[in-house]
Amino acid sequence: MAEDLLGQVLAQIGGDNPRLREVITSLTTHLHGFVAEVKPTEEEWLAGLNFLVETGRWCTPRRNEFILLSDMLGLTTAVDDVNHVGPEGMTPSSVEGPFHSPAPPRELGAWISHGPERQRATSAVVHGRVLDTDGTPIPGAVLDLWQANDTGLYDSQDDSQDDGNLRALLTTGADGAYWFRSIVPSSYPVPTDGTGGKLLTAIGRHPMRPAHLHVRITADGYRPLTTHVFLAGDPYLDSDAAFAVKDELVVEPVRRETEADLRRWQMDTPFEELEFDFHLAPADWKDGAAQ
Amino acid sequence: MAEDLLGQVLAQIGGDNPRLREVITSLTTHLHGFVAEVKPTEEEWLAGLNFLVETGRWCTPRRNEFILLSDMLGLTTAVDDVNHVGPEGMTPSSVEGPFHSPAPPRELGAWISHGPERQRATSAVVHGRVLDTDGTPIPGAVLDLWQANDTGLYDSQDDSQDDGNLRALLTTGADGAYWFRSIVPSSYPVPTDGTGGKLLTAIGRHPMRPAHLHVRITADGYRPLTTHVFLAGDPYLDSDAAFAVKDELVVEPVRRETEADLRRWQMDTPFEELEFDFHLAPADWKDGAAQ
Repeated sequence: MAEDLLGQVLAQIGGDNPRLREVITSLTTHLHGFVAEVKPTEEEWLAGLNFLVETGRWCTPRRNEFILLSDMLGLTTAVDDVNHVGPEGMTPSSVEGPFHSPAPPRELGAWISHGPERQRATSAVVHGRVLDTDGTPIPGAVLDLWQANDTGLYDSQDDSQDDGNLRALLTTGADGAYWFRSIVPSSYPVPTDGTGGKLLTAIGRHPMRPAHLHVRITADGYRPLTTHVFLAGDPYLDSDAAFAVKDELVVEPVRRETEADLRRWQMDTPFEELEFDFHLAPADWKDGAAQ
Repeated sequence: MAEDLLGQVLAQIGGDNPRLREVITSLTTHLHGFVAEVKPTEEEWLAGLNFLVETGRWCTPRRNEFILLSDMLGLTTAVDDVNHVGPEGMTPSSVEGPFHSPAPPRELGAWISHGPERQRATSAVVHGRVLDTDGTPIPGAVLDLWQANDTGLYDSQDDSQDDGNLRALLTTGADGAYWFRSIVPSSYPVPTDGTGGKLLTAIGRHPMRPAHLHVRITADGYRPLTTHVFLAGDPYLDSDAAFAVKDELVVEPVRRETEADLRRWQMDTPFEELEFDFHLAPADWKDGAAQ
C-alpha cells in the first residue's frame, strides 16, 4: 500500500467541512512534497518536530511564537496579500503585527508622543490626505495609528510609557487631510530570545524591522486598510525581518528647520516632515479576475 | 517589493549550513505554495497558528503531539520510506513509533506475555526466519520485539504491566529461525485527547491502528530493519491512523487447535499461528539510482 502513500493519506480526508478538507488536502500535499524534495533523515525530521515543541514552550497568552515564525518566513505577508487584492491606485495593505491596541481619539495636529522619547528622538510632522483611488478626498475617515518609541518598544511592552502613548485615532476633515506630531520612528529587532531568533541565527539573518508607522483606516463606503508607512533610507528596507515592506509604502523624510517651517507646523525644534497620502478602495470593489 | 515575495524571502536565507539552507528553502517554498493555493483568510491562518500553539501545550517530556500529527498526515511514513530504500526482496521498513524501550533477552519459544492479558486474549505462536534477500538464513540475528496488550497499552503506559511485559530480545539459531509465544495483538486507538484527536474528528477519520507487532532486527553485516507485522483481516488495515501498513508486512493468522498442533508448539489451548520471515539487506547495499 506504500506505492502511493500520499494518495492513501488524501483518500482518508473526509468530514462535513468542505473548506477544511480543501485546506488539509493542500497542506498534506505540500508537506509530502517537502519530504520528497529534501529527503530528511529521521534525526532531521525529529529535530524539526522538536523545534515545534520548543516553539510551543515560548507561547503565552501574550506571545505567539508561531506567528513570529510565520512573519519571518514571509507567510503572514503572503496571507495578507491574498486577502487584500484591490483596484489600481489603492494603497497596498501590510501586516497588522501583534501590537495594535485601542488608541485615544486626538485632535488633528496633536502630539502623540508624551513620554521621555520626545526629548531623546528627532521630532516628526506626519501629514497627508485620505483619498479614493481617483484622488477624491474622503472626509471623516478615521486613522488608527500606532508606533514604537525610540527604543523599539510599544506602550503595551513598556511600563515606562503611559497607555496610549504613540497611538491616536484621528478623523480627517472636509479636505480629507490629517496631520499629527510625533517622533521619527526607529528600526528595531523582533524578539530573538525564542525559536524565531534561533531560526534567524541559523540561516544568517538579522532580526531588524525597518522604521515604520502602523495605521488602520476606516471610512464609510470604503474597504478598511491596514498598512505600514516606512522611511526611505532605512538600512533594513530591503531585508525587513517580517517582509512587510512594499515600494508604495516608503516615504522620503524631509528635514525642516527654517523659521517658516517651524511656524507652519507649530514646532519649536527642527524636525522631519513625512507626507503620505492613503488611497482607499470602494467597499463594494470586487476583483473579477480573482473570484 | 511585493512583486516577488517568495523570491525576497528565499534571497534572505543564508548562514554557514548548506543543508539547513536547502531544507528551509524547500519548506518556505512549499508553505508559500500552500498559501497561494488555499488563499487562507486571516482568521483561518490565525486558527492554524493557534492550533500549533495548542499542540505545543499537549507536549511533555513523555509526549510529543507534533510526532502524532506527523504520523496522522503520513509524514512519518514518508520520512521512513525515503530513508529505507532497499534491494528487491528486502522486507520493507515501517515507522518505529513512540513505544520502543529496552527489552529483556529471552530464550527462543519463551512466553513474552506475563500479565492478566494472557488469560483474557487469544494466544499466539509467532515464528519464522531471518534471511537475506536471497533466502539464506542469518544466524545470530537479534529481534527486538514489542507489542501492546489486549487493551492497546504498552507496559510503559500501563502501571498494571511489569516492565518488559510483551517485549523480548530473541536471537536466531543456526537456521535463522525464531519463535515465541504471546497474545494475538489487538487494534487500538492513538491518543485522541489532544490536537491530534481534534484533527482526526474534524476530517472525519477514526483514530484506530490495525493490530500489529513491532520489531527491530540487527545482524552483523546487514542493515538494521525496524518494521511492523500486521494481521490479515483487521478492519483497519486500509485506514491505519498512522499509515504504517505495507502489503508485504501483512500475515494471515491460522487457527490451530489439534492435539498435534498444541504439542508441536508447546501450547495448552487453541491459538493463532503467525508465520513471518524477515529479509534483511546487506549493510553495504547502496541504491545507485537514489544517490
